[in-house]
Amino acid sequence: MTTRDIQSIIRQMTLQEKAAMCSGADFWNLKGIERLGIPSIMVTDGPHGLRKQIGAADHLGFNQSVPATCFPSAAGLASSWNRELLERVGTALGEECQAEDVAILLGPGANIKRSPLCGRNFEYFSEDPYLSSEMAASHIQGVQSQGVGTSLKHFAANNQEYRRMSTDVTVDERTLREIYLASFENAVKRSQPWTVMCAYNKVNGEFASENKRLLSDILRDEWNFQGFVVSDWGAVNERVDALQAGLELEMPTSDGGGEAKIIAAVQKGELSEKWLDQAVERLLRIIFKAMDGKKENAVYDKMKHHELAKEAAIESTVLLKNEGQILPLSRASQVAVIGALAQTPRYQGGGSSHIHPTRLDYALEEITHLVGSTNVRYEPGYALEHDEVEEELIRAAQEAAKQSDAAILFIGLPDRCESEGYDREHLRIPYNQIALIEAIAEVQPNVVAVLSNGAPVEMPWLGKVKGLFEGYLGGQASGSAIAALLFGEANPSGKLAETFPLRLEDNPSYLNFPGEGDRVDYREGIFVGYRHYEAKKIQPLFPFGFGLSYTVFTYQDLEIHADDIQDNEELTVTVTVHNAGNRPGQEIVQLYVRDVQSTVLRPEKELKGFQKIFLEPGASRAVTFHLDHRAFSYYNVDINSWHVETGEFEILIGKSSAEIELAQKVMVRSTAALPLRIDRNTLICDLLADPSVGTKARQELDHILLTHPFAKLQEDKEFSGMMEAMINNLPLRALSTFSGGSFTEEMMNEMIARLNRG
Amino acid sequence: MTTRDIQSIIRQMTLQEKAAMCSGADFWNLKGIERLGIPSIMVTDGPHGLRKQIGAADHLGFNQSVPATCFPSAAGLASSWNRELLERVGTALGEECQAEDVAILLGPGANIKRSPLCGRNFEYFSEDPYLSSEMAASHIQGVQSQGVGTSLKHFAANNQEYRRMSTDVTVDERTLREIYLASFENAVKRSQPWTVMCAYNKVNGEFASENKRLLSDILRDEWNFQGFVVSDWGAVNERVDALQAGLELEMPTSDGGGEAKIIAAVQKGELSEKWLDQAVERLLRIIFKAMDGKKENAVYDKMKHHELAKEAAIESTVLLKNEGQILPLSRASQVAVIGALAQTPRYQGGGSSHIHPTRLDYALEEITHLVGSTNVRYEPGYALEHDEVEEELIRAAQEAAKQSDAAILFIGLPDRCESEGYDREHLRIPYNQIALIEAIAEVQPNVVAVLSNGAPVEMPWLGKVKGLFEGYLGGQASGSAIAALLFGEANPSGKLAETFPLRLEDNPSYLNFPGEGDRVDYREGIFVGYRHYEAKKIQPLFPFGFGLSYTVFTYQDLEIHADDIQDNEELTVTVTVHNAGNRPGQEIVQLYVRDVQSTVLRPEKELKGFQKIFLEPGASRAVTFHLDHRAFSYYNVDINSWHVETGEFEILIGKSSAEIELAQKVMVRSTAALPLRIDRNTLICDLLADPSVGTKARQELDHILLTHPFAKLQEDKEFSGMMEAMINNLPLRALSTFSGGSFTEEMMNEMIARLNRG
Repeated sequence: MTTRDIQSIIRQMTLQEKAAMCSGADFWNLKGIERLGIPSIMVTDGPHGLRKQIGAADHLGFNQSVPATCFPSAAGLASSWNRELLERVGTALGEECQAEDVAILLGPGANIKRSPLCGRNFEYFSEDPYLSSEMAASHIQGVQSQGVGTSLKHFAANNQEYRRMSTDVTVDERTLREIYLASFENAVKRSQPWTVMCAYNKVNGEFASENKRLLSDILRDEWNFQGFVVSDWGAVNERVDALQAGLELEMPTSDGGGEAKIIAAVQKGELSEKWLDQAVERLLRIIFKAMDGKKENAVYDKMKHHELAKEAAIESTVLLKNEGQILPLSRASQVAVIGALAQTPRYQGGGSSHIHPTRLDYALEEITHLVGSTNVRYEPGYALEHDEVEEELIRAAQEAAKQSDAAILFIGLPDRCESEGYDREHLRIPYNQIALIEAIAEVQPNVVAVLSNGAPVEMPWLGKVKGLFEGYLGGQASGSAIAALLFGEANPSGKLAETFPLRLEDNPSYLNFPGEGDRVDYREGIFVGYRHYEAKKIQPLFPFGFGLSYTVFTYQDLEIHADDIQDNEELTVTVTVHNAGNRPGQEIVQLYVRDVQSTVLRPEKELKGFQKIFLEPGASRAVTFHLDHRAFSYYNVDINSWHVETGEFEILIGKSSAEIELAQKVMVRSTAALPLRIDRNTLICDLLADPSVGTKARQELDHILLTHPFAKLQEDKEFSGMMEAMINNLPLRALSTFSGGSFTEEMMNEMIARLNRG
Repeated sequence: MTTRDIQSIIRQMTLQEKAAMCSGADFWNLKGIERLGIPSIMVTDGPHGLRKQIGAADHLGFNQSVPATCFPSAAGLASSWNRELLERVGTALGEECQAEDVAILLGPGANIKRSPLCGRNFEYFSEDPYLSSEMAASHIQGVQSQGVGTSLKHFAANNQEYRRMSTDVTVDERTLREIYLASFENAVKRSQPWTVMCAYNKVNGEFASENKRLLSDILRDEWNFQGFVVSDWGAVNERVDALQAGLELEMPTSDGGGEAKIIAAVQKGELSEKWLDQAVERLLRIIFKAMDGKKENAVYDKMKHHELAKEAAIESTVLLKNEGQILPLSRASQVAVIGALAQTPRYQGGGSSHIHPTRLDYALEEITHLVGSTNVRYEPGYALEHDEVEEELIRAAQEAAKQSDAAILFIGLPDRCESEGYDREHLRIPYNQIALIEAIAEVQPNVVAVLSNGAPVEMPWLGKVKGLFEGYLGGQASGSAIAALLFGEANPSGKLAETFPLRLEDNPSYLNFPGEGDRVDYREGIFVGYRHYEAKKIQPLFPFGFGLSYTVFTYQDLEIHADDIQDNEELTVTVTVHNAGNRPGQEIVQLYVRDVQSTVLRPEKELKGFQKIFLEPGASRAVTFHLDHRAFSYYNVDINSWHVETGEFEILIGKSSAEIELAQKVMVRSTAALPLRIDRNTLICDLLADPSVGTKARQELDHILLTHPFAKLQEDKEFSGMMEAMINNLPLRALSTFSGGSFTEEMMNEMIARLNRG
């Protein structure tokens, strides 16, 4: 690493040059200054694969791109729950960036899946901030291990495509902290992405690009982010406001517009040049880091990366149903492979993440390879381009199914159904696919379906299939991965990183997604995903964390190192998992924490730990978790901090959010007191319950309450319940009124002063 | 009516006297000034019956009260859906006030039933603002027809008892207008209550008692309220702030505290004396109105009022289930009357509305009277005081049930379960009653249950009973009313004024009721009651508007006078109802309006009209409704007004919200345009869709969109869907960035100026 005097470089830059550095040179490149040795670095789209444009960048960035390995998209990768795998995928992506001379890869995306309808959900990890941030952190670590930067995006609360450049997200502070920001926070703290990309939308009235609270106060000051903030492409509204808020780099180029505004603002004294210098310093630190990390003549092994893509696709696939152990299928079976998606796979999403794969596996081909061409009958069954049922296609598919031992249906959402840029309006798969499923089920009892889609679909047809894989958008090797899973060459080990609802109306954001005009209220608050389904006792189609295996895992010996701790102590939790089946397999062990009783609303439980382990048949392994303050706390808006309320918590170990195998209680004691500020509107019940002034307050109040007519009435049977409640809920000021004036306002004010002194 | 120069009286009053008029003399009396001929008038609690204290008022107002007729509480009365009945009940209450020298009756309550848990729901009418306000208006008209005032309460958004004196209701403007205020608005406009009582709670950060927006801007300026505003007892926080906001009368007495503050404020120049004069004028107008309306030596016919109470109780009772036409029971049957509530009826709620009835009918006695004592076996079955199952009581009840042709179970919520002052925490009836129902169902197939309760309960036991009456808190004649209904002396005609949910978790306020600390967010917004269950497609236990009869009504010939109207025209709707059964009966014809398509979120449908009609067997009658602007409009927060969006609406005629019998469409055209203010962040789709500038905008934009690289990409198959969505959702400012700078910021600003000029 070269030591370099960045301050000295900045001193040599003209105001013009400094302002110019704060926006792109074109669509994909930052500016460089040759005379100062500042290189122009390139950034490129694609968290699950490089999308580097061929030739000169155009003004829109949609030219064809160079071949790159297409890994499963984030929705799939998250279903692996495998940190180490994510890191390896990240590493591979970093290698490809080095080979293509790309300095920063624009990803990963850590936005929370608020609604299953969001068109860009395939690019995001989860509905749970802990899982999402863990996946993002590992991805970032992998990429950055190669001397290549990442851009953690889209910061923040960019949870829909509809009116994404103008919508204003109204979200309360606790929800923002516990759900939407938490998904970024841990990734920033654990992995220090080189850059963070701000979102298009407004958050509580201010564009994310001009949101000082988000970009500076929280991201930098609280989380200690060390890189620079880049705008989403076109997200800058007023360039100077954005710079003031902490947005260093505007992308793409503003063709001189942005820098002219910065220069004018400095000249008019509206923007301090020091502030601009600081922004430039942050940009240069990363630019030089990229330069220093550059590996000359780097190449990567396309075949090895393809193999990794297959491994990732296998772990990203979730086995959702396996009635009568229909799966794995025997390689000796006659199978009907049905569905156009078997031949024209949907393996990646549409939009900025759309890449050009190095090679592509086709499920039909891979299945044929495994069982032999004489054992496979293929029929498309439906057209991908439209929803209309084509009877001929269906009849031919039925015929093939009839003549086989089992039918494998490839279904899902064609490209036209989900993409960046727009949201879905329903959870259905196309009608022609539904008709196909029903028709096949009529003639063939052994039906296995494989879904390709970026986000949950409803499944009124679930009863018609015995086996079901959720393949998400599995990347370029998804075809071989699904073949391996279908025939038991691999054992499924993915689990859902999101809840599949029975119907759209059950989703917590329903009625408040995508909002009205330019306003969307996150009225469901912290009750996103399983937090909602559990709190409202709504049965989902498949719960968060759910996924089947070809083997069987059992859980035993849950132990916690102490049953009574302080909130600044770590809790160590151990559990033993056993492979009781007859195949090797991986299990995702999930740890949830439940606050048994709380004065604030809390979810039924929250994911606070997970580990994926491999076990040979008959083998056992102890898994250890370490829980800190954050595992027990909620965000308290009165003290603007995370707070643990003293009380019992339950440590829950499960196979999924709905299958808790073991539970144990622990007492956690708070080391922080929440201060009570007493005024004329403080309620008697709050005063009496306060740990620090409660006793003193009771002495003061007993005098009033016992010598006044209240006392009598509390003894009156007819009114006792109501009177007790009424007195508890009286503010201090009302004592004067209700005491017939004998407890005067002056006496009250003196009492308040005495109590506030403590 | 005396003509009287109030201004001259005010001029004769000292500052001290004027300030003094603004608070009560004691718990129940206003102040008078003898030398100026201002009488001290009395107010008293109780919307469904007078609660005038015997002897001198104490400081708390809980002394025993004089006997008065106890009518069904509001929850019951609203189930009658009978405006004329409400008015007659109001008239009777007015007569009793005259007889007892009470000038103002403190009611009715028009708060919306946001949660079934609210402890005071029995005092409120409905979850629907239209039904609630119609009931309140008729009640007010009745009372005030007797020269006695009312106090429409609790204004506003007082929807829970928990921390009612300190909680801050956070509710968005549209919801406030469409749901919570609408329930008061129509009652104020239709019936001009002499007084309005402000609530204890805060609304959006300000105490209702200090909320100028509510008390002055909306109540007086918008709705033209002519009376005075009185505080709920003890609701005044800072007396001067309250007066400034528009609260004329503080109750009860503040023992000189309030007036001292007012005097000081006037003397310091913080409060204008003119403002005080105006408050005094408002008080005097009502005080003199009461004086002028006073009927000397008024008496009322207790027996006639009791008969009216019985009529009201009959109409307030809702028949919820009648499997196999088990009801009405034959007077020749042997019946087991089971349940302590048959002998110790719960016929009114606890709290300020608790009154001392002139007489009391007991269901057990009345049933015995109808079927003869040898045909009745009574067993209490459970204790009212606790939840514990007492096996002996149950066994005795089983024995009685076995020996009878049918069992009539009196069940519900004892006083300890619901009251003013606290909210319920669940929807269960006591465990000992549930055990009783199950035990009786084991030995007797013919079970009819009668519920006494102020608000919905859950009914996991519903399958165990064949017949079910919801009796609410039916007043002093509820015993004879229920006997008449059980044995067919009367035909049930009540329908639910609220949804009964299957379970608490289904309620829209669940998780946001009663809030955290001193804050409750009305996150469900306008989706209260049936609006929620319908929008979320959640099956309720019993839907809003539901109720059975012993006869059968059919609907035909729905006609609207025009199928295309302007929003300032009235729509006349006619439908014919026929009694196709063999008993005379009353039917509640319900009219709902559905906005077929809307750019803003609207409920599936909303109640906009209802009529209760009586029909002899075989008879038919045409029912006519008149729908105005309000029936089609929503509250638009951008223009701060009610707005009809041009489009199709459906007129739905139903027996309940879930049983729509007839429907017809009408086109309603808006006469008001919503102005579009164009700025750099206006989206292209909004601009193009605007009726006034859309065409002009297209000309301007086509030039840019067609000559720039966008055009090409829209033709690209791979990206067309995404590109179309992206372009539609681009703000004008982004055109500059995405056009590669050729459409400059200056050009954009000029275009915006041109378009804004129109």
